Amino acid sequence: MAAEKGLKRAVVLLSGGLDSSTCLLIAKKDGFQPIALSFFYNQRHAVEIEMASRLAISNEAEHFILNLPLDVIGGSALTDDIDVPESEPLDGEIPLTYVPARNLIFLSLALAFAETRNAERIYIGINSLDFSNYPDCRMDFLSKFSEISVLATRAGREGKKIEIKAPLQNMKKSEIVKLADELGLDFSLTSSCYNPDRQGLACGVCASCRLRIKGFKEAGILDKINYEKQ
Amino acid sequence: MAAEKGLKRAVVLLSGGLDSSTCLLIAKKDGFQPIALSFFYNQRHAVEIEMASRLAISNEAEHFILNLPLDVIGGSALTDDIDVPESEPLDGEIPLTYVPARNLIFLSLALAFAETRNAERIYIGINSLDFSNYPDCRMDFLSKFSEISVLATRAGREGKKIEIKAPLQNMKKSEIVKLADELGLDFSLTSSCYNPDRQGLACGVCASCRLRIKGFKEAGILDKINYEKQ
Repeated sequence: MAAEKGLKRAVVLLSGGLDSSTCLLIAKKDGFQPIALSFFYNQRHAVEIEMASRLAISNEAEHFILNLPLDVIGGSALTDDIDVPESEPLDGEIPLTYVPARNLIFLSLALAFAETRNAERIYIGINSLDFSNYPDCRMDFLSKFSEISVLATRAGREGKKIEIKAPLQNMKKSEIVKLADELGLDFSLTSSCYNPDRQGLACGVCASCRLRIKGFKEAGILDKINYEKQ
Repeated sequence: MAAEKGLKRAVVLLSGGLDSSTCLLIAKKDGFQPIALSFFYNQRHAVEIEMASRLAISNEAEHFILNLPLDVIGGSALTDDIDVPESEPLDGEIPLTYVPARNLIFLSLALAFAETRNAERIYIGINSLDFSNYPDCRMDFLSKFSEISVLATRAGREGKKIEIKAPLQNMKKSEIVKLADELGLDFSLTSSCYNPDRQGLACGVCASCRLRIKGFKEAGILDKINYEKQ
């Protein structure tokens, strides 16, 4: 799909989940032609990629899917043969679903993409409230990435700034649901479950499903996806 | 291959070129069990991966090759259908062989690897003298990466430092050749050419071949690879 003439471009890291899907709509609202970037990293919840594709198509955004064998690296319940936890750990512990250096890897690739596509921004749907224990979802990580992005690229060295935006950084899930609803997000084209069945049906009990269910409930908005249990 | 008992581990970014191969031997000399990490990114000089494998085997190092479709990102003479230049540009211009954000991407993946393998160091063969115009080969980039590596990982947040070492950073090519020779590097298992033929024969005229030839000449050491032209 060709970019609309004259429209500035933004790379959107699109996992297919609720947060990154909301980011895609925010990018459009901010006046950007979004270029969606997803990663197939042998995650057990690969159905999210299909959702990402459908959402990108329905928003007339280009969509690139990169294969990235993070399961070779391992160390996560999202790629390894470890049970997905039903709750997030307490006391500042890092969740089993942490994927080593994932956001650094994803942002680095998005940065390369942004450089070759002349995009001025990268949108990433990270959030430091709900899953506060992921190291690479915090504000200090993101500020440091902005600094290194200038040093790591031709664009940066030549004074072209690629801005890293995390518009959901400090929002509660219920606030994200409300915002997504206002922006007209089709919730049926998003997938949050860490452990869906083969048909993509959400389990309803993993930490990510629980958070989503709670968010919609608090927002007083009806979700459009089904769950195996709830 | 199992790591020697009790030996500390280091991830070595091994391209198969002279510099990263030298780094593998430096890691061993520094007392580490090296874990070699290479990337197949549809580079035109993919023969370097074969060299990397042979070198890793001959040094009893584990070797992981990750597929990384950087050609989808594009923007480089090393992955795109652009002629490889025979000389590096002058006046601080960034070479056509620059691959967008490559070292940031490679180091990010190496960091994830180091974390899951309990490695204490990452060795990278970057050099800011010979190809001074690559943005991501400079010292400021590397220091910033050390900072972000602490924020991006579980290891970093838990106080386990993964050190980023670039032992060749300020060395001339002739000095690297001398050091590699002292460490017993088998030069026939290294490949520097940006544009080899299908059998892996180095062209002898690209910027990288020229630099290697000059380095060996200045060091007064005989290279063990052949060239198509010279």
